[in-house]
Amino acid sequence: MDLTHLLITLILIFVGAKAFGELANRVGQPTVLGELVAGVILGVGCLKLIDPHANVIILLADIGVIILLFEIGLATDIRELLEVGWHSLGVAVVGVILPFVGGFVFAVAFGYTNLVAIFLGAALTATSVGITVRVLADLGKLKTKEAKIILAAAVADDIVALIILAVVRDLGLRGDVSPLKIIQITALAVVFFIAAIVVGNIFAKRLVKIIEKMRTSGTLIVGSITFAFLWSLGAEVVGLAAIVGSFAAGLALGRTRKFEVIATELKPVAFIFTPIFFVKIGADVDVRYFNPFNEANHAVLIVAGSLFVIAMLGKVLSGFAVFDKRINSTAVGVGMAPRGEVGLIFAEVGRRAGIVTGDLFAAIVVVMALTTFLAPPLLKLSMVRRPRGMSLLTWFFEPARKRVSRMIWGR
Amino acid sequence: MDLTHLLITLILIFVGAKAFGELANRVGQPTVLGELVAGVILGVGCLKLIDPHANVIILLADIGVIILLFEIGLATDIRELLEVGWHSLGVAVVGVILPFVGGFVFAVAFGYTNLVAIFLGAALTATSVGITVRVLADLGKLKTKEAKIILAAAVADDIVALIILAVVRDLGLRGDVSPLKIIQITALAVVFFIAAIVVGNIFAKRLVKIIEKMRTSGTLIVGSITFAFLWSLGAEVVGLAAIVGSFAAGLALGRTRKFEVIATELKPVAFIFTPIFFVKIGADVDVRYFNPFNEANHAVLIVAGSLFVIAMLGKVLSGFAVFDKRINSTAVGVGMAPRGEVGLIFAEVGRRAGIVTGDLFAAIVVVMALTTFLAPPLLKLSMVRRPRGMSLLTWFFEPARKRVSRMIWGR
Repeated sequence: MDLTHLLITLILIFVGAKAFGELANRVGQPTVLGELVAGVILGVGCLKLIDPHANVIILLADIGVIILLFEIGLATDIRELLEVGWHSLGVAVVGVILPFVGGFVFAVAFGYTNLVAIFLGAALTATSVGITVRVLADLGKLKTKEAKIILAAAVADDIVALIILAVVRDLGLRGDVSPLKIIQITALAVVFFIAAIVVGNIFAKRLVKIIEKMRTSGTLIVGSITFAFLWSLGAEVVGLAAIVGSFAAGLALGRTRKFEVIATELKPVAFIFTPIFFVKIGADVDVRYFNPFNEANHAVLIVAGSLFVIAMLGKVLSGFAVFDKRINSTAVGVGMAPRGEVGLIFAEVGRRAGIVTGDLFAAIVVVMALTTFLAPPLLKLSMVRRPRGMSLLTWFFEPARKRVSRMIWGR
Repeated sequence: MDLTHLLITLILIFVGAKAFGELANRVGQPTVLGELVAGVILGVGCLKLIDPHANVIILLADIGVIILLFEIGLATDIRELLEVGWHSLGVAVVGVILPFVGGFVFAVAFGYTNLVAIFLGAALTATSVGITVRVLADLGKLKTKEAKIILAAAVADDIVALIILAVVRDLGLRGDVSPLKIIQITALAVVFFIAAIVVGNIFAKRLVKIIEKMRTSGTLIVGSITFAFLWSLGAEVVGLAAIVGSFAAGLALGRTRKFEVIATELKPVAFIFTPIFFVKIGADVDVRYFNPFNEANHAVLIVAGSLFVIAMLGKVLSGFAVFDKRINSTAVGVGMAPRGEVGLIFAEVGRRAGIVTGDLFAAIVVVMALTTFLAPPLLKLSMVRRPRGMSLLTWFFEPARKRVSRMIWGR
């Protein structure tokens, strides 16, 4: 890709994200829904103006979601996260088991082999927390207990996803599973996350002290982002998602005395990078699969429809693993539902191994897209209180108020 | 390039830039010199940890210098720029003619063909304004009249460079020059720059009005950068450097009522992107050519030494095209001297056409590097007043005071 091409792509992403984000906001939807829609319109499905498979765009999108989770980590109190730890673990485990079993049984009932069934089940277990946290921020609900549970569950979910990925990869490549390797991977992931937070806390305090002694300007923001990248790299190395690392880095820096300055300086950087991630997710969606007038799509759409019900139910029910009546279990479950690009990683492993083929792969892609695109409106429905006497439709499409950053961050 | 590789590269760039930038500051040098040195150490010449030819790094560096010139444009008053317009035109024209004639005569005297001599002369005419403006900002001299003359001359220089590039490209590819094409290119470039400022002023005011009506957050910074990218794209399309476009966009937005907010929000974004540009420039320098103990380098170093004298003298003397005794002509000339990556573009065209070969190309690379690396200390020597009674050496290496942004921008 050359500079001209990159400039065109970025201009399209920014204009699309802002125009459709604003539109979404005006019809009472989370802004991120508009960014996803902008991606669909500009991407492979419609206008083909943005290539979501271009190396530079993939990398900038990755940086975007790393910075987003770093920002979220910075605004999250680690003690509140630990308080909901057991709830979150329950949500993560139930939210993996239910979709997996559902997908597996469905595939076996439809005559697929056990191997295909395992891949299908695995693909349904994923959670793409990037979407959910942006919706929560858009709705001004990032400081709620439900948000904490979702965040902690997403970390647990990522560790579980890592284990599942190792299992299905072994199954796909070798036909059997090495239990020792799985124990190793699990231990490494758990140890990494704990170490990332413990070491991160010590490191972050020293970093801030060093930065305060520096005479050159810009050291705080560059130092903080370098720290986030370093922790992301660590997560990548042990096989976790990079965002788990940047989230941990954010948690650590959030406990230092400089965290408010960092949050302020980080905001414009996040405004530039995060839309690239969401527009790219949208641009990946191939809407041609959704065309019901094309007979070739019928089988895909029927399978996708059934899988979608399993995928949604599995995650929504996981919210009820929280045994606390003050918690909005539906909201937690809905928040765990978007599969985003994470589910596609599983499906892609299966496709490369020749296990998940043609139509089934297309059906999985449709399910991933549906869960992602329904999360913003469903989260609004389950989390935002409707005033008495207002009709559901009026309330749902009521233009959102101007959500300045103070509202989003609750300060 | 994958995410792991990109994270490693960015971590190295940020840590290197900050560490050596701080070191440069402590020994009284402009911070950017440290960033260049960090690049040399990490790049192709020494540790080979950063690959400056990786597509993603080239593009991020390009975005970095676009954002830098946008930031400079934002802080520049266009009326002050127009006031020095004639001075600048003189500096640009003399600064092109002298190095060109010098390089041409040198090459012919050494027995090269006329064609080679033209390429050599052309390569010496370039100016890389990115280096100079960063040094001026580091020294807190961005608001001086000398800085305005250099900025305006850099724009004129870029238009002249475009014409020369068209000429040498025609000569290299076809053996002769089409005068009509050159007139076309010149007219297009001049019309573009005037239109960019006139249309930019109208457009910028409307853009700010639209942004003020938007309810979603982050619209101001995303909108401003989109505007800068759009104008950069326009410049690219007419064949000018992208930075000429983003500089014009900055000039236009600098006249709107929101310019202070934009400047504040742009700063963290610039802190992240600009070091990538300077470290990349440094990483491109192959220090092996400088090794005098390798006999193969002797011819290169002798030719480079002579060319360096011609290159420096030509630009320094151009400063005296300003017939105004209150202006520091030496500083203007020294500010026009760094060739950076711009000179390499000329040399590269000659190399691809098979005209500039082996040792001569190496010598040009050495000259480009020398002019770039000497600009920061030379600008300090020519622009910063030495207190009475302090020795030159003490003053030169005196640790710089903490240059907070208020000092840099003069407000």
